[in-house]
Amino acid sequence: MRLHDPNIRTFASDNYAGALPEVLAAITDANGGHQIAYGEDDYTARLGEVVRAELGERAEVFPVFNGTGANVTALTALLPRWGAVIATGSAHIHTDEGGAPERVSGLKLLVVPGEDGRLTPAAIETEAWGWGDEHRPQPLAVSITQSTELGTVYTPEQVRAVADFAHERGMAVHMDGARIWNAAAALGLPLRDFTADAGVDVLSLGGTKNGLLGAEAIVVLDPDRVDGLVYLRKLNMQLSSKMRFASAQLLALFEDGLGVRTAAHANAMAARLRAALEPLDGVGFAYPTQANAVFARIDPAAADRVRERYRFYDWDRAHHEVRWMCAFDTTEQDVDDFVAAVRAAL
Amino acid sequence: MRLHDPNIRTFASDNYAGALPEVLAAITDANGGHQIAYGEDDYTARLGEVVRAELGERAEVFPVFNGTGANVTALTALLPRWGAVIATGSAHIHTDEGGAPERVSGLKLLVVPGEDGRLTPAAIETEAWGWGDEHRPQPLAVSITQSTELGTVYTPEQVRAVADFAHERGMAVHMDGARIWNAAAALGLPLRDFTADAGVDVLSLGGTKNGLLGAEAIVVLDPDRVDGLVYLRKLNMQLSSKMRFASAQLLALFEDGLGVRTAAHANAMAARLRAALEPLDGVGFAYPTQANAVFARIDPAAADRVRERYRFYDWDRAHHEVRWMCAFDTTEQDVDDFVAAVRAAL
Amino acid sequence: MRLHDPNIRTFASDNYAGALPEVLAAITDANGGHQIAYGEDDYTARLGEVVRAELGERAEVFPVFNGTGANVTALTALLPRWGAVIATGSAHIHTDEGGAPERVSGLKLLVVPGEDGRLTPAAIETEAWGWGDEHRPQPLAVSITQSTELGTVYTPEQVRAVADFAHERGMAVHMDGARIWNAAAALGLPLRDFTADAGVDVLSLGGTKNGLLGAEAIVVLDPDRVDGLVYLRKLNMQLSSKMRFASAQLLALFEDGLGVRTAAHANAMAARLRAALEPLDGVGFAYPTQANAVFARIDPAAADRVRERYRFYDWDRAHHEVRWMCAFDTTEQDVDDFVAAVRAAL
Amino acid sequence: MRLHDPNIRTFASDNYAGALPEVLAAITDANGGHQIAYGEDDYTARLGEVVRAELGERAEVFPVFNGTGANVTALTALLPRWGAVIATGSAHIHTDEGGAPERVSGLKLLVVPGEDGRLTPAAIETEAWGWGDEHRPQPLAVSITQSTELGTVYTPEQVRAVADFAHERGMAVHMDGARIWNAAAALGLPLRDFTADAGVDVLSLGGTKNGLLGAEAIVVLDPDRVDGLVYLRKLNMQLSSKMRFASAQLLALFEDGLGVRTAAHANAMAARLRAALEPLDGVGFAYPTQANAVFARIDPAAADRVRERYRFYDWDRAHHEVRWMCAFDTTEQDVDDFVAAVRAAL
Repeated sequence: MRLHDPNIRTFASDNYAGALPEVLAAITDANGGHQIAYGEDDYTARLGEVVRAELGERAEVFPVFNGTGANVTALTALLPRWGAVIATGSAHIHTDEGGAPERVSGLKLLVVPGEDGRLTPAAIETEAWGWGDEHRPQPLAVSITQSTELGTVYTPEQVRAVADFAHERGMAVHMDGARIWNAAAALGLPLRDFTADAGVDVLSLGGTKNGLLGAEAIVVLDPDRVDGLVYLRKLNMQLSSKMRFASAQLLALFEDGLGVRTAAHANAMAARLRAALEPLDGVGFAYPTQANAVFARIDPAAADRVRERYRFYDWDRAHHEVRWMCAFDTTEQDVDDFVAAVRAAL
Repeated sequence: MRLHDPNIRTFASDNYAGALPEVLAAITDANGGHQIAYGEDDYTARLGEVVRAELGERAEVFPVFNGTGANVTALTALLPRWGAVIATGSAHIHTDEGGAPERVSGLKLLVVPGEDGRLTPAAIETEAWGWGDEHRPQPLAVSITQSTELGTVYTPEQVRAVADFAHERGMAVHMDGARIWNAAAALGLPLRDFTADAGVDVLSLGGTKNGLLGAEAIVVLDPDRVDGLVYLRKLNMQLSSKMRFASAQLLALFEDGLGVRTAAHANAMAARLRAALEPLDGVGFAYPTQANAVFARIDPAAADRVRERYRFYDWDRAHHEVRWMCAFDTTEQDVDDFVAAVRAAL
Repeated sequence: MRLHDPNIRTFASDNYAGALPEVLAAITDANGGHQIAYGEDDYTARLGEVVRAELGERAEVFPVFNGTGANVTALTALLPRWGAVIATGSAHIHTDEGGAPERVSGLKLLVVPGEDGRLTPAAIETEAWGWGDEHRPQPLAVSITQSTELGTVYTPEQVRAVADFAHERGMAVHMDGARIWNAAAALGLPLRDFTADAGVDVLSLGGTKNGLLGAEAIVVLDPDRVDGLVYLRKLNMQLSSKMRFASAQLLALFEDGLGVRTAAHANAMAARLRAALEPLDGVGFAYPTQANAVFARIDPAAADRVRERYRFYDWDRAHHEVRWMCAFDTTEQDVDDFVAAVRAAL
Repeated sequence: MRLHDPNIRTFASDNYAGALPEVLAAITDANGGHQIAYGEDDYTARLGEVVRAELGERAEVFPVFNGTGANVTALTALLPRWGAVIATGSAHIHTDEGGAPERVSGLKLLVVPGEDGRLTPAAIETEAWGWGDEHRPQPLAVSITQSTELGTVYTPEQVRAVADFAHERGMAVHMDGARIWNAAAALGLPLRDFTADAGVDVLSLGGTKNGLLGAEAIVVLDPDRVDGLVYLRKLNMQLSSKMRFASAQLLALFEDGLGVRTAAHANAMAARLRAALEPLDGVGFAYPTQANAVFARIDPAAADRVRERYRFYDWDRAHHEVRWMCAFDTTEQDVDDFVAAVRAAL
């Protein structure tokens, strides 16, 4: 039963897009007969092998339902009850998870300024102190997002700088990789180069924003840093019974480079959009466009005229900042039509 | 990429089965183009209409990821921070959710004996006291499971008796409907008759155990009893971004009676299994078989011989009790082969 | 400013009594000048020495505000986020802490029957299983109360049996010693014999019910079993700024045997009460009287007549069970007058 | 047993001071005989009357153990599970409570810059948005500290401006009054003028820093704004059994203006200290000195020389900022000696 018009595309969010045909095929393949529930199935086993091949022999993968679940559960596994997390003010865990890290796991966030959305050692340092003082929430982890919420990408060296700074002070390193495939595509590097090999301890491996129906995973890169993930996933209500379907979706992204290819396309569409808009008077840009998002500054009245045809979000209404997001299914024609609409609205 | 043998079926759990073909078709139909994320899509809107038609005009539906998420979030919405829940010792929220109600929401469970898995007013009464005394966790909700964890079913009158008893004492009524379709099939009644019309305030509407890839929903039947569900679903990490796919799955169960039909089949297979086993010496039965599970008592050595061919779970090893569960895809031949295996093992 | 009649004494609770004169003197001595806050004062240092002398060289003491704070914080320090505690149905942590273990620390309680309020290995065994299964709350600690909530006392051998059984299964042992002085007096043994030397890992050391204004302490007996207590005490809002006063109070109980002496008096008064009531028709007894409480069965109408002069609590109204509690300041005359009142009421 | 030298005084913290003689006398008066536990005693009843007289007929008082307990419990009572609190970066709830608001109650703090430690409508506005959006923690309360952590004081008009701004947006107003007596003394106004009458909904009424052994209270000024405080105090492990002693202490502060008088003395000593230091080269000042703290900037080497005789805390070591705190028992001679030590160290 189709209830919607499948020809409409927006620039609102990569979550507005649906699922890749390869992902639907993978689900169909995984269907039929009985498989052991809760992760003892053949697809989850294979996912473990693939993740070890891609991210290192010590890597352990725990499929979960969504990004908030991945982030909160990962951080909980990294931290004792008295732990705090240093992150930027634009971090999804701070702005868009409804306070779940605090409510579900009692985690304190220590928020510092980012540079184009990136966390830096200098920013970490402002909150990295007070260990042993029971009055102060203990800063025992940092969390970075790759690609960032502002559409920028950490180089492996930037990740490494954060990780070294953190590890030297006894803090663990979490990466929110909700859009990690876009980062891999932008960098032209394997996932491992800017995660495991750059010092990340636990990764939230995204999938949904890159063409899955809905599946993410926690990938433990340094098992010595975490404890009890198998219990915490259950307690945090992130344990899928028919896990074969989540694992099959995630596997599809690793198959024949699908995940990087689709992300590269989304990135290319964002680049095309930015390039076409750059010359226009009346459109400014808040941050570099390195992944699949363009953050533009535009007069609100003009933005509202564009909205008559295209849905998208204000990012910072006070500063006339909007976010235009491309997805795996954004076409060149979509971009060109959107640019025409912006041009007309200005 | 198919990694498994789709011809193997077990009697371990309805979670071992995969997805109904109608459900895969519904997902495919819901795919394509952009739909607003987080529940403002056309499928979730339609699901709201269908649920209102089936469960009453006041009903509100909130798709979530899994049963634990549905139960914990529903109970949290029903209870203040000082609330406690009365449930039976066999309740899934007590035995199989890893302590999530306690850890995620700080809910106290007050556990009482069940009758064949059912909660009764007399059992509730043993813990329903002490309101206003801050030393005592405040019993402000009861939770029942339909069909029960022991394969039995509440009649509408039994639900009503529990609900009236609870409501008279200011307690809300939650139903864990992880296998609600099996109950509907067993009773031959619409969902409404033993939920909304029998006094249930909030329902965890199951789907996964009855042929979905993975989707459940919280259905609020009395909106006056709950608060903040929209926030709590997010906080409890149960908010799906591409919700259209969850809603499309749930819709499929309501289409042309699919959910009841598949559950009726699973129930019939359990009845067939029980009937074939009843005459055997060496197999006893712990509870009536009213839904899709047979709880049998069998010598552990014999059970282990059956296990050489079929996977299934001990329920109470001390009492030699095992659970044999049928699913939507269990065939008559499966049952007959299994019975032969049991016969041979005895 | 005196607002009350200091001549009234009840049989309701040892919490109704005030403070010992020695305790007021200790507070006065500890007053004056400046002492480092939050536990770096001379009184807390001395308390550490005294506790090590009494309870073993590895013992660490953490003064806290009240018994619930001691119990919840002790159990939190003993357990990972996925831990559950086995305790009896009469345990204070289950019945009288408002659900604080669940709400503050997300701890699951697994409740089993007691024998006259005592936990036994056989009872523990019914819930001590399922380690490694993420669906099951992980039983990783047991909690016993000494003297019990029912006025009975564990022998050192009984504590040892529980501790051995727990330790063999990887579970830690907590003792709620809200009335530990009454147990010491009843047993005629040093605290150490039935705590550290009997296998207890962490002790909630009571004080308030035995003549302090208000002070309890967590005493860690096996530091290898706990983690982060210094942080957890703060997080659980149990860190006193002017800790010298709490420590001075606790020290007073160890000085010249004060704590045991006062508890022995309260016990003796309970024994006197029981002995005087034993011969009476119309008064039965629910449990042995080994510490400072008498649990009696008496007709509710008669009980209400006694209440015209004396305040006390129903324990189990359904079974006509009342609790009569003696304190450090209960006199022989008080007991005799009370017995006369009971006699008259029957 | 006196273990310490009562002649030593520091400039480290008002928590280093002991108890006022009037407070010890009040405790002695409240002693003797039996009083109903957990708050049904005569002293708590009288405290309720006094608080109503001082803070308005609707005021309700709940004695608790410490300031963190008061703050966390007050905020919990003001907020639903999805609520967030706006406060300054210097707020005690953010910097010095170990993350208790987050861990105990899952509260999200939204931190904004203060002006000399004060929260302003303009600062609140930066986080006061996003109601109804489940992705955003819902800003439903503001918390201000009076006097502030930086030794400044809100005028009634400043409190009113914050309260009006908050209330107009549906947010509740909490005041952390750990040093509220110092504010009252500084302003020369009754408590009511800058709390209840200025729009504060719930007040944490301090006591310990102003000469009590240890007692604080939550004072509800607008009962329509809170829910379940009686339960939350118990759940948060802040319910004193022998509450008469906490209430007697708090009563003493209201008796004959004791609380204001002692705070005025501490303030005067801070003013004397500041006045004496102002002329010195090598000492700067970070904030106005309006209550009992002087925040000075001084070369760390000089500061360390002062520390050879006097204990005090760095406030912001990076900026060479130290805190010198006066207490009820600081004498003019103490101040003069300290000034001499500073002068010698420079």
